Amino acid sequence: MNYKLMSRYLGRILFVEGIFMIPAVFISIYFDEWNAMRALIISIAIIIMISGVMYLIGRSAERVFYAREGLVCVGLSWVLLGLTGCIPFIISKEIPNYIDALFETISGFTTTGASILNDVEGMSKGLLYWRSFTHWLGGMGVLVFVLAITTGNDSKSGFTMHLLRAESPGTSVGKLVPRMKDTTRILYLMYILLTALDFAFLMFGDMPLFDAVCTAFGTAGTGGFGIKNDSIAGYSPYIQNVTTIFMFLFGVNFSCYYMLAIRKVKQIVKDEEFRLYVGVAIVSIVIIAFNISGLYKTVGESIRHAAFQVSTVMTTTGFATTDFDAWPALSKSILFILMLLGASAGSTGGGFKCGRLLLIIKSFKRSISKTIHPEKIQIIRNNGNTVDEKTIAATNGYLVAYVIIILISFLIISFDGFSMETNMSAVVACFNNIGPGFDAVGATCNYAGFGVVSKLVLIIDMLAGRLEIFPILVLLSANTWKKK
Amino acid sequence: MNYKLMSRYLGRILFVEGIFMIPAVFISIYFDEWNAMRALIISIAIIIMISGVMYLIGRSAERVFYAREGLVCVGLSWVLLGLTGCIPFIISKEIPNYIDALFETISGFTTTGASILNDVEGMSKGLLYWRSFTHWLGGMGVLVFVLAITTGNDSKSGFTMHLLRAESPGTSVGKLVPRMKDTTRILYLMYILLTALDFAFLMFGDMPLFDAVCTAFGTAGTGGFGIKNDSIAGYSPYIQNVTTIFMFLFGVNFSCYYMLAIRKVKQIVKDEEFRLYVGVAIVSIVIIAFNISGLYKTVGESIRHAAFQVSTVMTTTGFATTDFDAWPALSKSILFILMLLGASAGSTGGGFKCGRLLLIIKSFKRSISKTIHPEKIQIIRNNGNTVDEKTIAATNGYLVAYVIIILISFLIISFDGFSMETNMSAVVACFNNIGPGFDAVGATCNYAGFGVVSKLVLIIDMLAGRLEIFPILVLLSANTWKKK
Repeated sequence: MNYKLMSRYLGRILFVEGIFMIPAVFISIYFDEWNAMRALIISIAIIIMISGVMYLIGRSAERVFYAREGLVCVGLSWVLLGLTGCIPFIISKEIPNYIDALFETISGFTTTGASILNDVEGMSKGLLYWRSFTHWLGGMGVLVFVLAITTGNDSKSGFTMHLLRAESPGTSVGKLVPRMKDTTRILYLMYILLTALDFAFLMFGDMPLFDAVCTAFGTAGTGGFGIKNDSIAGYSPYIQNVTTIFMFLFGVNFSCYYMLAIRKVKQIVKDEEFRLYVGVAIVSIVIIAFNISGLYKTVGESIRHAAFQVSTVMTTTGFATTDFDAWPALSKSILFILMLLGASAGSTGGGFKCGRLLLIIKSFKRSISKTIHPEKIQIIRNNGNTVDEKTIAATNGYLVAYVIIILISFLIISFDGFSMETNMSAVVACFNNIGPGFDAVGATCNYAGFGVVSKLVLIIDMLAGRLEIFPILVLLSANTWKKK
Repeated sequence: MNYKLMSRYLGRILFVEGIFMIPAVFISIYFDEWNAMRALIISIAIIIMISGVMYLIGRSAERVFYAREGLVCVGLSWVLLGLTGCIPFIISKEIPNYIDALFETISGFTTTGASILNDVEGMSKGLLYWRSFTHWLGGMGVLVFVLAITTGNDSKSGFTMHLLRAESPGTSVGKLVPRMKDTTRILYLMYILLTALDFAFLMFGDMPLFDAVCTAFGTAGTGGFGIKNDSIAGYSPYIQNVTTIFMFLFGVNFSCYYMLAIRKVKQIVKDEEFRLYVGVAIVSIVIIAFNISGLYKTVGESIRHAAFQVSTVMTTTGFATTDFDAWPALSKSILFILMLLGASAGSTGGGFKCGRLLLIIKSFKRSISKTIHPEKIQIIRNNGNTVDEKTIAATNGYLVAYVIIILISFLIISFDGFSMETNMSAVVACFNNIGPGFDAVGATCNYAGFGVVSKLVLIIDMLAGRLEIFPILVLLSANTWKKK
């Protein structure tokens, strides 16, 4: 493996992380938080130093890169971001335990939003800002971002392609324009614009500036870290509705926005994944609103809570406006299925993805049909185009990996003795980058109660979920580290 | 479709069912149960009459049969067995509700053992015998049985092959000897011998004759209907241990016993599925025995209960000696995973099967390895033989179907308002032909509380689980019923 080149890139990523921590320092100064400021400055110094050393090691690297290096590099960079991103929490002693700080930071970067904090409001504003910012940075992919802002001839090394494939959310981005770098720039431009729009709408609803920034970050990355102990519940219905809509928008495949920009609206409306995504959301909201109507005073309130929860769970954001753990079993079951499903491919949302479900359903139908007519050749189409057999096999394989990881994780964290509902939903909520689950990890609770082993398992789940499983498995596979 | 030939075969199957109901009449007479006797005699008359009409319709049938007919025939015959097998319960008014009676009978034939009876001991002995006998008949496959006892030139019509493929438990039977009919006879011979052995051991432990017969039927078919309200809990530890061992033995791939008969012991010990099956059982028993050690007085008692529960759940039998719903979360989680896993291919047990898990794990490992070395050709082997890619794709496809059916069923039965744990475990317990689940369908409870729609869904799940999904899906698919 080309360790030197990897070191060079990882160094560059750390450098970007360090730079992005600087605004948090100013926020700490503004709010008179000297302890947090000191912690942030020391952390930045440490991170930039490590970054410099790594960059120097990789200075003379050969520019040859293969798929394996790409995957390992992506996996490692996210681990490294977590390991260094949690330093300010530890130095400031706001989260003194290293595993807890790592859990919180990985939860941030992977846009999970699962927290170990009992009292979020007790944190300093500077660190809360950094915590929410990790969502925003992780939402679109850190390496993709680094690619978008760097220039040079690295793009010729095959590196760009391998990274994008491994990290970019979903399978269908990257075909917008011929050059990869241009595609990443377009994606980031849309991401920034949509975040700014969300921010503007929140400010229009008289949300305090700091709250609006953090909420917009959490929404854009479909992360879900709240800066209040009751998440979004304390804000006005207007702000809750704005958040509902923007969570939903960030769960749409970004190529739809590109189509919108080049005025191909018809293509969006006809897109099968978009239709499935919208359809599932509407049906779920209607059923849940009926199911919970007895719990709230007005029909409007039931619909608002139903829409918010469907949006937050389906896009794998994880904000909360109400304790959905107290809802009837039917609503909880629907939310559980939505947790597994997730948002669209090519969005910032996680989960199994609507696009994959479409393929799975089609290949499932074909299996039945093949049992009846074994000799007939049957092609699977998506939006009218033939889907090749490799993609179908890979999608089936993805579901297999998905199920295996959930069951193994479920089994390991069961040793902590929580209820089956807690354990199953904790694994699903972390692996699909949602955040809250049910019972002991429900909307009003957090992950502080789990032991160290369980937290590590959940950290791996979050990473595996965010990076669509394989980069993390490659990182954990002994085979990867063998010399040729 | 060749409806006439189908009618002919279905008629023959019904005839066999009617004949097998006769012993129950004598048992009723012996125990002075005149109501049950009357109900049984009327039922037999009805069944034989229907069978005669169907046979007459199919008299002049052409002997041409395709895969589609085979699958439909298998699916239909099981539905028909359920619809007619429940007649005595209804006529005798021991289970007056038709859906409940159907649920109980399908649960019997599919060897599930899920019950809607609140008071099993209140039933007549004659009907209890019939109820347990459905397990025994369903265990090895009803059609396979009919094949084994009939002679004639039907075996030349291609019918035999299609039926065996669709119904016989697992994939690896049918290769024992060149002729299919001989294979089914060998299978049934081993099945009868093993049942007789179980019966003898039970009698040796001073179990009443009637109890020993019914328990042996429930064990052999890995069914799990008990004839006592507390299932097996009231019997002596010796009887419990005998049942533990025999449940386990009936969960072994029957080809292993054939190997034993022809003295190829080495092949059994080397068999990868056998090793996995034994290994998983031992590890589970050890962990659970430790986990529950606080609940029982002696180490021996903990081990006995742990071994019994692992054996009953893993072989998908469903007998109970203790309320495992009250066990700690870790033990319950392990049992839940074992419920999903099930027994060996080619056994009477249900579930996903150890053999499939082996293939799934191997293909999962290969996906990781392929991510690292995309160019390398990698072959999957089982017991040293190359597994062809079609089998691997089919196994992955099976898991996909498995997951989809569980989730859809889970969602539908959630409308009844039970807890998520109840609903998830009810679906898993029915689909995998186990019987009891957790919470409201736990070992000390039953399925009476579910509504009609949920019961129908669970009936379909039981059938789909027993017939390895596709025959039932083919039956439900509109495509099947289209004219060419």
